[in-house]
Amino acid sequence: MADAQKLARRVAEKLHAGERTSTAYDIELVDAGEGFARASMVVTEEMLNGLEVCHGGVIFLLADTAFAWACNSRNVATFAQAGSISFISMAQKGETLIAEAREEASQGRTGVYVVSVKSGSRVVAMFQGLSRTKGGAVVEE
Amino acid sequence: MADAQKLARRVAEKLHAGERTSTAYDIELVDAGEGFARASMVVTEEMLNGLEVCHGGVIFLLADTAFAWACNSRNVATFAQAGSISFISMAQKGETLIAEAREEASQGRTGVYVVSVKSGSRVVAMFQGLSRTKGGAVVEE
Amino acid sequence: MADAQKLARRVAEKLHAGERTSTAYDIELVDAGEGFARASMVVTEEMLNGLEVCHGGVIFLLADTAFAWACNSRNVATFAQAGSISFISMAQKGETLIAEAREEASQGRTGVYVVSVKSGSRVVAMFQGLSRTKGGAVVEE
Amino acid sequence: MADAQKLARRVAEKLHAGERTSTAYDIELVDAGEGFARASMVVTEEMLNGLEVCHGGVIFLLADTAFAWACNSRNVATFAQAGSISFISMAQKGETLIAEAREEASQGRTGVYVVSVKSGSRVVAMFQGLSRTKGGAVVEE
Repeated sequence: MADAQKLARRVAEKLHAGERTSTAYDIELVDAGEGFARASMVVTEEMLNGLEVCHGGVIFLLADTAFAWACNSRNVATFAQAGSISFISMAQKGETLIAEAREEASQGRTGVYVVSVKSGSRVVAMFQGLSRTKGGAVVEE
Repeated sequence: MADAQKLARRVAEKLHAGERTSTAYDIELVDAGEGFARASMVVTEEMLNGLEVCHGGVIFLLADTAFAWACNSRNVATFAQAGSISFISMAQKGETLIAEAREEASQGRTGVYVVSVKSGSRVVAMFQGLSRTKGGAVVEE
Repeated sequence: MADAQKLARRVAEKLHAGERTSTAYDIELVDAGEGFARASMVVTEEMLNGLEVCHGGVIFLLADTAFAWACNSRNVATFAQAGSISFISMAQKGETLIAEAREEASQGRTGVYVVSVKSGSRVVAMFQGLSRTKGGAVVEE
Repeated sequence: MADAQKLARRVAEKLHAGERTSTAYDIELVDAGEGFARASMVVTEEMLNGLEVCHGGVIFLLADTAFAWACNSRNVATFAQAGSISFISMAQKGETLIAEAREEASQGRTGVYVVSVKSGSRVVAMFQGLSRTKGGAVVEE
């Protein structure tokens, strides 16, 4: 179990290091485990839309990033096939958003993940992702 | 009709000008009309994930941007309530992606839009968005 | 708290009694609480498609039914605005399916619910629903 | 081309004949072609929910049925992997609903279909489906 957690963490760190999008928006890896990941991001000026709130596309990007870490956590290369997001409340400049992804189902090459995006206890968005295993390792074991 | 097109264009230009995300990723306004919009973006180094292809979150952001222009095109402030995206093919660095949003239905305060994201004739992703009218104008008429 | 549970139960019973679809497919109300509901259904001959497995539309119907009970559980009339379902495994004739709906977020008039549909511990489908409060009571208090 | 249309029609007829759900709800095959299908259904007493309007699950079932015919139209067995529906307007008892499915994208084993469900010119729901090719024929050629 401890090994599974360590492996998940190494996978997330490897993916995180390769994501230029995480660099651009300063997305941080908070936590990672088997079928699980948590990412954080502070809403900055660069993420705003014309209504002066965080662009929905950036919120999706954060959720999708946590989803990618979670669905690759067993070190089998996996990609996102589809994602659905519902926007619940606006996120303002300066707020810290936490995206938490957890596996809800896994069968054969298909997985389903739910990701919540929150600011404190307030829900900003809910995301559901469908993943498909491609095969191959993400990091060397 | 010509006036409706001009108004839609002005609305899209106003939204586009305010989007820091469009500046960051060099998203261009190609075309806009009533219930319709087209946006383009070249995949750059900054958009890549650890697999060296365009991050799905950036593709969603492009689709969501065209969706926002289209659902605001009648100059009634409208926001995205939900979006679903299916990823069909990978987008590589250097490719030009075109997102084309069109209104499929509008009833009361609810609208449904379909957005295709293509590289040439190849479909990269399909998006469906649900919008909700908030009221108020985007630009002065 | 006990009162909230009783009220949720009464609401679910009222909705259930009015659903001709629940009668047609013998959908049973297993449990209901605040922001929560559980429905069950046995896959019968009438639910099969040409591939001799349960039609995806019937699985959606079961999930949507549990979702409706959960999002109305506080006795404020609420309707489904959108739903996304991912099909994970096939359901065969004779299997008992359990749909369990739980509230993930609620903000103003908008709610997000996740519904799992399982046969034993095997996940058949995952559903995410977006609800919108209409107002008015479902049952007299 | 004429042959492709005839094949699509034969596939849809075969699937339709096997669907007990289509029998139960009297779903009719209106038209079928390559990457395309149209189904109709009259809203009856049996489809109503407690609010005396057509249950969303039945509307999804109709859309999903047209989707299945369209994504199998080239006579390669294909199944629905995911579906998203947005409900736009209520459907009343006695109304005739037409679901029209069209292919928006197809790449490798993945396809994306958009289905509109209308009563006359009024949109009742919009559906987006993700399909995955399984292989094998539906009808003998």
